[in-house]
Amino acid sequence: MKDLLGGKGANLAEMSKIGIPVPPGFTISTEVCAQYYDLGKKLPEEVKPQVQAALKKVEDALGVKLGDPSRPLLVSVRSGAALSMPGMMNTILNLGLSDAAVEGLSKQTGNPRFALDGYRRLIDMFGSVVMGIDHEHFEHELASLKAQRNVKNDTDLTADDLRELVARYKKVYKTHTNPSHDFPQDPHDQLWAAIMAVFNSWMGKKAVEYRRIERISGLKGTAVNVQAMVFGNMGNSSGTGVAFTRDPNTGEDVFYGDYLINAQGEDVVAGIRTPEPISRLGEEMPPVYKQLMDIRSKLESHYKDMQDIEFTVQEGKLYMLQTRTGKRTGSAAVRIAVEMVKEKLIDEKTAVKRVSPDGLNHLLLPQLDPKAKPQIVATGIAASPGAASGRVVLSAEAAVKHAEAHPGEPIMLVRKETSPEDVEGMHLAKGILTATGGKASHAAVVARGWGRPCVVGCDALVINEKAGTIQIGGKAVKAGDFLTINGTTGDVMLGKVATIDPEMSGDFSILMGWADQYRTLKVRTNADTPADAARARGFGAEGIGLCRTEHMFFEGQRIVDMRKMILADTLEERQAALASLEPYQREDFVGLFHAMAGLPVTIRLLDPPLHEFLPHDGPGQEEVARQLGISVEKVAARVTQLHEANPMLGLRGCRLAIRYPEIGDMQIRAIIDAAITVKQEGKEVLPEIMIPLVGVVEELTFLKKRAIAVAEEVMTKRGVKVDYLIGTMIEVPRAALTADQIAEDAEFFSFGTNDLTQMTFGFSRDDIASFVPSYMEHKILKVDPFQSLDTVGVGQLIEMGVAKGRQSRKAKHGEHLKVGICGEHGGDPDSVAFCHKVGMDYVSCSPFRVPIARLAAAQAALAGGAKTERDR
Amino acid sequence: MKDLLGGKGANLAEMSKIGIPVPPGFTISTEVCAQYYDLGKKLPEEVKPQVQAALKKVEDALGVKLGDPSRPLLVSVRSGAALSMPGMMNTILNLGLSDAAVEGLSKQTGNPRFALDGYRRLIDMFGSVVMGIDHEHFEHELASLKAQRNVKNDTDLTADDLRELVARYKKVYKTHTNPSHDFPQDPHDQLWAAIMAVFNSWMGKKAVEYRRIERISGLKGTAVNVQAMVFGNMGNSSGTGVAFTRDPNTGEDVFYGDYLINAQGEDVVAGIRTPEPISRLGEEMPPVYKQLMDIRSKLESHYKDMQDIEFTVQEGKLYMLQTRTGKRTGSAAVRIAVEMVKEKLIDEKTAVKRVSPDGLNHLLLPQLDPKAKPQIVATGIAASPGAASGRVVLSAEAAVKHAEAHPGEPIMLVRKETSPEDVEGMHLAKGILTATGGKASHAAVVARGWGRPCVVGCDALVINEKAGTIQIGGKAVKAGDFLTINGTTGDVMLGKVATIDPEMSGDFSILMGWADQYRTLKVRTNADTPADAARARGFGAEGIGLCRTEHMFFEGQRIVDMRKMILADTLEERQAALASLEPYQREDFVGLFHAMAGLPVTIRLLDPPLHEFLPHDGPGQEEVARQLGISVEKVAARVTQLHEANPMLGLRGCRLAIRYPEIGDMQIRAIIDAAITVKQEGKEVLPEIMIPLVGVVEELTFLKKRAIAVAEEVMTKRGVKVDYLIGTMIEVPRAALTADQIAEDAEFFSFGTNDLTQMTFGFSRDDIASFVPSYMEHKILKVDPFQSLDTVGVGQLIEMGVAKGRQSRKAKHGEHLKVGICGEHGGDPDSVAFCHKVGMDYVSCSPFRVPIARLAAAQAALAGGAKTERDR
Repeated sequence: MKDLLGGKGANLAEMSKIGIPVPPGFTISTEVCAQYYDLGKKLPEEVKPQVQAALKKVEDALGVKLGDPSRPLLVSVRSGAALSMPGMMNTILNLGLSDAAVEGLSKQTGNPRFALDGYRRLIDMFGSVVMGIDHEHFEHELASLKAQRNVKNDTDLTADDLRELVARYKKVYKTHTNPSHDFPQDPHDQLWAAIMAVFNSWMGKKAVEYRRIERISGLKGTAVNVQAMVFGNMGNSSGTGVAFTRDPNTGEDVFYGDYLINAQGEDVVAGIRTPEPISRLGEEMPPVYKQLMDIRSKLESHYKDMQDIEFTVQEGKLYMLQTRTGKRTGSAAVRIAVEMVKEKLIDEKTAVKRVSPDGLNHLLLPQLDPKAKPQIVATGIAASPGAASGRVVLSAEAAVKHAEAHPGEPIMLVRKETSPEDVEGMHLAKGILTATGGKASHAAVVARGWGRPCVVGCDALVINEKAGTIQIGGKAVKAGDFLTINGTTGDVMLGKVATIDPEMSGDFSILMGWADQYRTLKVRTNADTPADAARARGFGAEGIGLCRTEHMFFEGQRIVDMRKMILADTLEERQAALASLEPYQREDFVGLFHAMAGLPVTIRLLDPPLHEFLPHDGPGQEEVARQLGISVEKVAARVTQLHEANPMLGLRGCRLAIRYPEIGDMQIRAIIDAAITVKQEGKEVLPEIMIPLVGVVEELTFLKKRAIAVAEEVMTKRGVKVDYLIGTMIEVPRAALTADQIAEDAEFFSFGTNDLTQMTFGFSRDDIASFVPSYMEHKILKVDPFQSLDTVGVGQLIEMGVAKGRQSRKAKHGEHLKVGICGEHGGDPDSVAFCHKVGMDYVSCSPFRVPIARLAAAQAALAGGAKTERDR
Repeated sequence: MKDLLGGKGANLAEMSKIGIPVPPGFTISTEVCAQYYDLGKKLPEEVKPQVQAALKKVEDALGVKLGDPSRPLLVSVRSGAALSMPGMMNTILNLGLSDAAVEGLSKQTGNPRFALDGYRRLIDMFGSVVMGIDHEHFEHELASLKAQRNVKNDTDLTADDLRELVARYKKVYKTHTNPSHDFPQDPHDQLWAAIMAVFNSWMGKKAVEYRRIERISGLKGTAVNVQAMVFGNMGNSSGTGVAFTRDPNTGEDVFYGDYLINAQGEDVVAGIRTPEPISRLGEEMPPVYKQLMDIRSKLESHYKDMQDIEFTVQEGKLYMLQTRTGKRTGSAAVRIAVEMVKEKLIDEKTAVKRVSPDGLNHLLLPQLDPKAKPQIVATGIAASPGAASGRVVLSAEAAVKHAEAHPGEPIMLVRKETSPEDVEGMHLAKGILTATGGKASHAAVVARGWGRPCVVGCDALVINEKAGTIQIGGKAVKAGDFLTINGTTGDVMLGKVATIDPEMSGDFSILMGWADQYRTLKVRTNADTPADAARARGFGAEGIGLCRTEHMFFEGQRIVDMRKMILADTLEERQAALASLEPYQREDFVGLFHAMAGLPVTIRLLDPPLHEFLPHDGPGQEEVARQLGISVEKVAARVTQLHEANPMLGLRGCRLAIRYPEIGDMQIRAIIDAAITVKQEGKEVLPEIMIPLVGVVEELTFLKKRAIAVAEEVMTKRGVKVDYLIGTMIEVPRAALTADQIAEDAEFFSFGTNDLTQMTFGFSRDDIASFVPSYMEHKILKVDPFQSLDTVGVGQLIEMGVAKGRQSRKAKHGEHLKVGICGEHGGDPDSVAFCHKVGMDYVSCSPFRVPIARLAAAQAALAGGAKTERDR
């Protein structure tokens, strides 16, 4: 009944209904709010008697009375719409206090300070929320009294001080109300004014703006919850506590929490007194503890999930103040879900739906030892999860040297930003930290691909590479010092902080097994090496969705030959250099086909601009010149020639293979040759050749024709046929718009959502850090579109691409067009759900995200709503 | 009847039908071609007798006979489909020659050499086209005979040599046919084989490929035209000529052409003999001339247009070989169209449709003097039309210095490429020549905007700025030397070539008046200065569609203040610099509002990345440091900080105003302040504030809110209200995709098709020169999408943007959303037609293209097919 009672009201009613003691109260429904506005901000006639009757019941239940000088009832008046709008509407606490009632409460609690503090807070809250008095006026009085008393903290004020403060607050109230009048001493007057203030806040500027931004519409209004306040600080038979029905860290089925005797909720949170573990309550208050254990079972049976609860004991009587689904670590989520299935509390489908896919990170990567108390010196953007410690190196070459000099010692690569030239050093590092870049920067993408913890965009990092030092968060660190990063949170810590490798528990594989039963999307991996491919297969990958061949050209002799190719003056020189590269490529592909035998392997032809393979600095260019036996001027001239204003939109992708067809030819030869070799060993090979950055169908037609000719030549020469597909990435907006034309020639589509997002938004992922903070500040962007797919804009192009492509392929060739995604989004649960919805056949993501994608795919399937049937 | 007879056949039949003498002949219809394929490459039974009957009529008409040894009939056999497929299908000439007939022809013409040359050509053509013999074999014999005779040209061979060559060709024919047989001596055998060869060529590889590429489908096949050959070289009562029915250069209503007595058509073309002006024919062959003048009138009355004709006189008898619409200069087109209306040959609508909008360039810009015979040393990309001569300068500063030292002397700015820093020098130059860049590069766009002739992407240009020299097409040129460019053709010429300013004739304004009656699209201009605005208004511009405010920040003190703003450390410093810029901005806008009083003026907020305002070289940075009194390190550091990997997709457009709201505030203040000033002078001002690069509606919402607040403040301060609109550019693909959301907040849309094309294709216009030549070579691109709108891809986004935007604006605000285009495409006639079709309200283009756009808009309206009603 959330529509009618609001979220909070419905939840309180629910607990009450199943016999769990909650402080008595009642809810004025959202319909009354609607009527209130219909009547021109007037309460409907019939509300008043109903509220009075309900209030009477509350008073009777507790044996107290609103405004009673000896035993006053205090209530909270809170808003609560059907959807949560945190902090957007009004709340008034301690309502019911007056000059008379505050004395009663003092006596009743034996704590005048508490009673008076509640009273001055009520005057402040009522004055500012209901009467619109600027809260500053009250603050000013508080500050000036503290100054007079020469104390620092509010808690240092005595009961007498607070009595004085109440007097001053009442003066402020009177001065600033218009027409001037006293703070209402009749609590019923307070109540009506508070109820109307809550209704008024529904149309307040903040709330209206919030609903506009969050695109919330169609709600009737807010409900008003009036509930008795209970107090855990009424002596030693009172107390308060918070607990989880199971251990939120491990998921173990134990009652987990803390309590304090003679205290209020905020005392537990504030940490002034050290709370006791909940099990001790069994000794101190056995009946209450027993009742609490019963409630624990009842709540779990009722809500079918682990609960996070708050309770208060007032003079031996237990009240539940809140129950909500408990937050938990990824490991706990898995264990709780699997155990609850065993306990027959939930079924397998529910278990699969219950675990947050992103939470699985905890099960897959090293984490900071929770016992460690590290010193966080800076926080950047959490780019690739997991924790890592290592000795600082400031360049890729330094990493190589360090690894040679000190094999096995962990390395932390710290750079302003990384480029493809740095990959060797990145591969050697345990963790990567950069000063610039966002979640989709080079460092972030590569690190995620390899499961390396990574923090990027760390503004507080200043690197002096020449001096071999860095400044981070004002601390000086030398190359060789230890630094620790937490790629899950973005934290950077000095020194070596202990990390732990979580266990891959049996529960985890049970849950993944259930997920696989329900999902219809296949999950592949983005992998460039046999080791990554094997790891991903271990995580359940069903093929490679993206092998970036450029990553194969950076190490050892390969980069030398690659540079020879780029620096070639003639076609013949270029072909000679390519001939030297070909054996390496062939060997790479043999390794991948082995690791993925029986599963499809999508290989993307060379994609990045060629300048990425050449050093841009003088010394680097000198070394290249020396290695290749040519003049440094020539190297520099070629670098200048290859320089582009906007390399992302320049000579790259299929444009390279059209400009230099011999590059593509070499790669096709290597793929087909390798496939034949592996096939001859009796293994099944399913190569899928992917042509990147197609925007005009003629690009694909041209390269496909050429690829087929080369493939035929190799197969004829070796006398063996292999089946292969030729498809394309859809990553340029025009490709999605003309997917019908492209699908006539493409045997599969793979959405490259990184580039598609860049071009659809006009955002260079390397450059947006300069304005994204402003965008977040002004709520212009709510999520990073490189992290979670922009379904509104980019998603339209994807839907169009899938629909047009499928229809055209079916019409022209009578066959189903295989469609997948290989951008970073393939491992993002929300994006996986979108891919499922638009009817893709598979998603592809980095090895470490494969289980996450499997689970997300299962959840998407269970949520229903796929657009088209897939080809299974 | 082109479908049935093909283009050529229909045209010949047409002339024949209106009583114009054409060499007798007949056409075998396209339906026969279809039947030929239906029957498995066999001619239908009934074709043979019909062809023989038709042939008989031809023979009778001419008194000759196919194969007759004394008076042989010679025919041509030509293909001809309904749509022109130039060079894609087969043609056989001189059919009918044999050993016997060649002797008859020799005698008849008294020219054995001519007869024998025709015979050897027939054997070659028939052998290669009909029998598939490699043409090389014939070529080889020709070459070897020439070597034996020790002659260089074919024409140096004597009749006896040709007799020998015929013998050798016949041997080649026999050797290479399979089964081996002699060249057919029966001309009827030749004819049937030739007809079938033409039909076969319809399905030839070349023709099929051509139809695929050109997306031609639905044709029945090719027709076959069999036509008697006539000869103008049969003595002094024979002759041949070519003519235009009016002067194709000026359009004057005079008969214009040349002829030669006793010659063949190719002699006129080859220029071996100097032809006589056509008027002389009246003296030499009065009856023929009179007949020709009658035909001239008849053709113009029939085709209602100026014709380009070919004729031959054979022994006193006139034959028309061809008539087709004559090509003409832009000025001639205008004059002919207007005069033909006066002559009541055509109506005004036809006149408007008749003139090619691009041809108007001739009327608007200086041209090379046609009498000049310049030496073309290189050809680049024709980027901005018109011709210009000037003294070479190699930098913008050199241009400034040169202009100061030698006021009034024409300057030719020669650069590798230009950047916004160069605009002052560009403005001083008469013409601009760059080594790199395409039609949408900075140089091209700026030059077109100012009507400066410009050639870009001139590969043959190597600049040595230090030495003050350039190499162009192998020639050395020094700074200070004269160079001439033709921006209409891309040609570059040494020295000073004379140019002429064509007159703006009365006919031109008459035609434009008619165009304005029919068009429904408004035409605005892209202008940044009052002078440009005034010029455009003179050309008929109905407002400013794009004022690029960044162009206002480059000169004099402005650039100093701009740099101060960019280099500011604090908000206060930035605001101080902006305060210095504000009076300049205000003054600029006052000038624009004056020039466009009563018409809308769209002002775009600052768009380019800030680094464009800072020099990137050491000396430049030193000067800035000196001017601003700060350290050069600081300047360099800011340049480095502003450096972006892909600036086009970085911090620019609305992102600037969101990151630094004070910049936008200053511009809004200046606009509103200026508008009030001009309004107070009693002039109507219609400012339209345009927020660039919006991709997410929240960007617009944020900036619009801020702009309204600033505008209100100014209006309150000055006590005057002005009406203004706030709208956005649609130039990021996501903006088009989410146009429905954006239109809720935008009062107008202006499609920025330059950026939209860049992002939709993933093409950086500054970088595509590296692969576009390969794309053209492989026919992957057929037109430059920066020149003519890609209606297939980018066009989809535009249609979507218009439709979604209009619908949403209507639904939300009940009003028509004004939509225009302000990219370079606004001046391209095909693109204007597209804009009309999708229902835009206006196009905006550079001042010099305004008349072109007006005419194109009229033609589009006359062609019909607009999608929606416009708000007029």
